[in-house]
Amino acid sequence: MKPNIEELFAKILEKRKPANLYQPILYTLSQGGKRLRPRLVLMATEAFDGDMEKAVYPAAAFEMLHNFTLIHDDIMDDAPIRRGKPTVYKQWNGNIAILSGDALANMALIEMLDTPISAENVVKLTKLFAQTSVEICEGQQYDLDFETCDHVSIDDYIYMIRFKTAVLLAACLKAGAMISNAPEEAQESIYQFGISIGLAFQLKDDLLDVYGDKAVFGKKIGGDIRENKKTYLYLRALEDADEFSRNELLRLFSSTDFDEEEKFQAVSAIFNKLKIKEKTENKIEELVQRAFIELDKIQIPDSKKKIFKDLAVELSRRIK
Amino acid sequence: MKPNIEELFAKILEKRKPANLYQPILYTLSQGGKRLRPRLVLMATEAFDGDMEKAVYPAAAFEMLHNFTLIHDDIMDDAPIRRGKPTVYKQWNGNIAILSGDALANMALIEMLDTPISAENVVKLTKLFAQTSVEICEGQQYDLDFETCDHVSIDDYIYMIRFKTAVLLAACLKAGAMISNAPEEAQESIYQFGISIGLAFQLKDDLLDVYGDKAVFGKKIGGDIRENKKTYLYLRALEDADEFSRNELLRLFSSTDFDEEEKFQAVSAIFNKLKIKEKTENKIEELVQRAFIELDKIQIPDSKKKIFKDLAVELSRRIK
Repeated sequence: MKPNIEELFAKILEKRKPANLYQPILYTLSQGGKRLRPRLVLMATEAFDGDMEKAVYPAAAFEMLHNFTLIHDDIMDDAPIRRGKPTVYKQWNGNIAILSGDALANMALIEMLDTPISAENVVKLTKLFAQTSVEICEGQQYDLDFETCDHVSIDDYIYMIRFKTAVLLAACLKAGAMISNAPEEAQESIYQFGISIGLAFQLKDDLLDVYGDKAVFGKKIGGDIRENKKTYLYLRALEDADEFSRNELLRLFSSTDFDEEEKFQAVSAIFNKLKIKEKTENKIEELVQRAFIELDKIQIPDSKKKIFKDLAVELSRRIK
Repeated sequence: MKPNIEELFAKILEKRKPANLYQPILYTLSQGGKRLRPRLVLMATEAFDGDMEKAVYPAAAFEMLHNFTLIHDDIMDDAPIRRGKPTVYKQWNGNIAILSGDALANMALIEMLDTPISAENVVKLTKLFAQTSVEICEGQQYDLDFETCDHVSIDDYIYMIRFKTAVLLAACLKAGAMISNAPEEAQESIYQFGISIGLAFQLKDDLLDVYGDKAVFGKKIGGDIRENKKTYLYLRALEDADEFSRNELLRLFSSTDFDEEEKFQAVSAIFNKLKIKEKTENKIEELVQRAFIELDKIQIPDSKKKIFKDLAVELSRRIK
């Protein structure tokens, strides 16, 4: 039987009350999304010859944890739409979004604790879960802090997205290795592989916001520019620009009142002049190569390594 | 060495960044409060001859969990003051309160997982923690739902406060029994004892809001009446009142625009006429007796039982 996370979600949420707590959770989990995190857990479990039936628990737990962060982030970002539908915060209200997020995080924890492996390994796995959760909070707080901070360096930014995005992907891969009883060094290497592809994944997200194909990307192009978000592209441009372009960028990113299209064109022009697209692509490629170095440390057949390599390429070259 | 939770909190929070995430947590944990939950863990550990040094971890974890719920509840209740100081939500803002609460809950989990007992017992303890956390969310959601619900029965109310308040006190006692390797039946009995004193504790809270001595109680008398809160006293009065008093109560609880003092006097008069104070005291006494029955099932010396009995009496007769 192929492990089925959707069925597990349905089972967990069956007949739960009160409705105002569990309907938003069902709503969120039913919308799907990429299901990247469970895929990573299952992929690592398969690569390290683990038991796929056992992997479904951490796979579900990490996907639930991810969705919990989305529910709370959407309140903080005042985001109206997620996956093409109103956010929990908008569909219900802020209180319900806070509380259903809290419940979802703890339901994720329960799934993690239910993983049918030795108690020692459950404790290790749950420590990874807890540590990752704290780090995601730190990343989100840095992200909020950066909004009102005038001096964010590229290093600061990489540090932030490491916590906000990469640690969860890395933890998913490590969890798969853990439940397969892979050696400690292999667990650490696959974690570091996950950090690098996680960073690449986020930089690709930044890139698609400006250079993506609207019809393919699924969300509006230029959203980060409109919202004055300090992405890798913006910070790279600030560091590389001459004084004139730098001041122009700072001016354009000082308000949300500009005409959207004009602002996008003006910012794109600066990015293009500074070859920001190429520089970001180079950085992504550098991260993918760093991921490959970690992968090479792991003692598994090349055929299994290829799955991870394909993943790295897929995430770094994705067009949506 | 006597286990010291305050020192553990200080150690956990040392040198943590970013400041906007950890300062609110430090602020919350430094304000003290009753520290009732750690006291319950330590009390049960002592009664079941457990290791007090080990008990400090679940004691800290449950106190942190409790404080996490306060940080989030204060956002939902739009509460300006907690323990005589501005709430995190007011001192910082809603986003920081959401996120520092999330981080605190996960830091609590890390402490729980660090309890130096067998992995099997850590898993059991952490399942209790996760299950209790979910139940607290359910209780809080029922509480929010009741605000706008016209037909809340006394049974509904007891069901709600069981989850919102009692399960955490019960879990603290059970955790102490668990780390002391008390028999399963003893763990269950001390949990049920905790449920009953937890319910009594909340009803006493409701009572003090109307009949407490302002100088001793520490907070303003009549806050629940001003805010139209559906407390045990109010619901008991609604059930016992004749049609005239019932309509008067419904009218008084339909707005927050009444003169505060006049409303308090009018509601108190109805409560007095219906002997609500005595009825609530009787209900509290019934719960204490029910707690004693659970206690009698446990095979520990009478000298140890006395500690729990004294606790039940203390919580049910407290004047603040």
